[in-house]
Amino acid sequence: MSCKRVLLTGGSGFIGRHCIADLLARGYEVHATTTRAISSSDGVRWHRTDLMNGDETTALLAEIRPDNLLHLAWYAEHGLFWQALENLDWVRASIVLLRAFIAVDGRRAVFAGSCAEYDWTEGHCREDSTPLRPQGLYGVSKHALRLLVEEAARRAGISCAWGRIFFLYGPDEQPGRLVPSIVRSQLRNEPFACSGGDLRRDYLYVTDVASALVALLDSPLEGAVNLGSGHAVSIRAVVERIVARLGHPELVDFAAPAAAQRDVPLVVADTTRLAAELRWTPRIDIEHGLGLTVDWWRQHLDAPRA
Amino acid sequence: MSCKRVLLTGGSGFIGRHCIADLLARGYEVHATTTRAISSSDGVRWHRTDLMNGDETTALLAEIRPDNLLHLAWYAEHGLFWQALENLDWVRASIVLLRAFIAVDGRRAVFAGSCAEYDWTEGHCREDSTPLRPQGLYGVSKHALRLLVEEAARRAGISCAWGRIFFLYGPDEQPGRLVPSIVRSQLRNEPFACSGGDLRRDYLYVTDVASALVALLDSPLEGAVNLGSGHAVSIRAVVERIVARLGHPELVDFAAPAAAQRDVPLVVADTTRLAAELRWTPRIDIEHGLGLTVDWWRQHLDAPRA
Repeated sequence: MSCKRVLLTGGSGFIGRHCIADLLARGYEVHATTTRAISSSDGVRWHRTDLMNGDETTALLAEIRPDNLLHLAWYAEHGLFWQALENLDWVRASIVLLRAFIAVDGRRAVFAGSCAEYDWTEGHCREDSTPLRPQGLYGVSKHALRLLVEEAARRAGISCAWGRIFFLYGPDEQPGRLVPSIVRSQLRNEPFACSGGDLRRDYLYVTDVASALVALLDSPLEGAVNLGSGHAVSIRAVVERIVARLGHPELVDFAAPAAAQRDVPLVVADTTRLAAELRWTPRIDIEHGLGLTVDWWRQHLDAPRA
Repeated sequence: MSCKRVLLTGGSGFIGRHCIADLLARGYEVHATTTRAISSSDGVRWHRTDLMNGDETTALLAEIRPDNLLHLAWYAEHGLFWQALENLDWVRASIVLLRAFIAVDGRRAVFAGSCAEYDWTEGHCREDSTPLRPQGLYGVSKHALRLLVEEAARRAGISCAWGRIFFLYGPDEQPGRLVPSIVRSQLRNEPFACSGGDLRRDYLYVTDVASALVALLDSPLEGAVNLGSGHAVSIRAVVERIVARLGHPELVDFAAPAAAQRDVPLVVADTTRLAAELRWTPRIDIEHGLGLTVDWWRQHLDAPRA
């Protein structure tokens, strides 16, 4: 295997931590940033870096000189990230990162985009034809960054792809999000009010999202690529699958009123590029993934989060 | 007059210097940034600030606490700015500025946009209907910044407008640009090769651009507003008007081949918003403006530029 040196940002994040094994398996020398305490190495060279500090970012890139960049770090606080001004800070930090990557002659970069870039009233989202009408300051920030990254990469001769992540779930997700909320309420015999049960979304298990991002990095594909399952599942069906494993249907109220403007009936990825061009398919279907997630919460329900 | 405190960035720049008198006349307390040496005050509080340094920017805003912001500073090096990576740095710097303005409870902001945000194949550019297909990394950067600014301003409750500047000219323009090139070659009895003489553009004299920006700031208008004359003039006509004043038609070669991809036949502003909503009209037509510019160069041809 030839030496391929990658800088992974957000290496200890919800998605990032699952990229590491895939990167190592594909022969990358992995450098990863984190803001957490560095515990073990696992073949990774960890860098405790605050990407909000542009000078730190620039110095880190000059030190590592990566040929590859997989940029996942972003503000992701549940309930806040959709409209938070912190999205602006991450556009700024991402620009600094891109500039520093160009300055050290980086060759290949993949950035984490989002289905929030699309016009959701279209339902079925396809990279080359669905209108972009970004959702919230989060969606606008990802969209604006993509425009900058694509033009600057073209100008600088860097091969670049933009992975549009749809809905995801898995172990150790923020407790306030949908899947952990249901799992934890069932495990604690607490009632759960489910709003928007009829809405259908494209869910992909977090290790599959990570695997797709790494496959994309390790390919010559350019431009936007949807990272989803290609299948829509209703919120009700997700809840019912979890409840079927945990046994308390009487605690779930599906009559809760739907939440608001984001409640379009369908958001699903067209996965033609992912399947036909990247030749990547998910390994873990929703039934399997929810089972793994429930098992994880059984072990960690009362453990303090890292 | 009530106290209206404005921070003007790029206060000593080609446009910015002409905003100051208009701002003072409208009762603003004017704070202006510059990277040049501060010579005289003229009723302005000058701040020698490097907006590339985010900490400096944030500290400056915390010190001044402006209610109003007129952000003109950008990378504008002739021949380079269209594709320069420095555009990314100015998006970054502008984000820091916006964040700092929000943090000090700023109320009204106007940013300098560009006709380079439009799809130029349309010719006639109207804010609400002409497709945006930004030109070069410059156009992409302005476009991306506008998306971020508009969404963040809405989120933060700031009144915000985006002035799309078309083509401009006037005294002390960078010597390599069209008008100074012709004027200087005529004054020096040197040949001038004019390419793309048939192309028609919307030219506005620099003091009118400045006046329109200040009028926009001092209004409640939101969103994009074209700042142009509303009239297209051919490059050939601009050259001929200058030559008529300087008397050496034999030195001009109109047969030079057209330059490249940017050479669409027509780029002109629809000025409906500017005229009907802002109620602003130019004071200096092209004949008058070119006369003033020629006169300025007669005085300054051999003087070193500031």
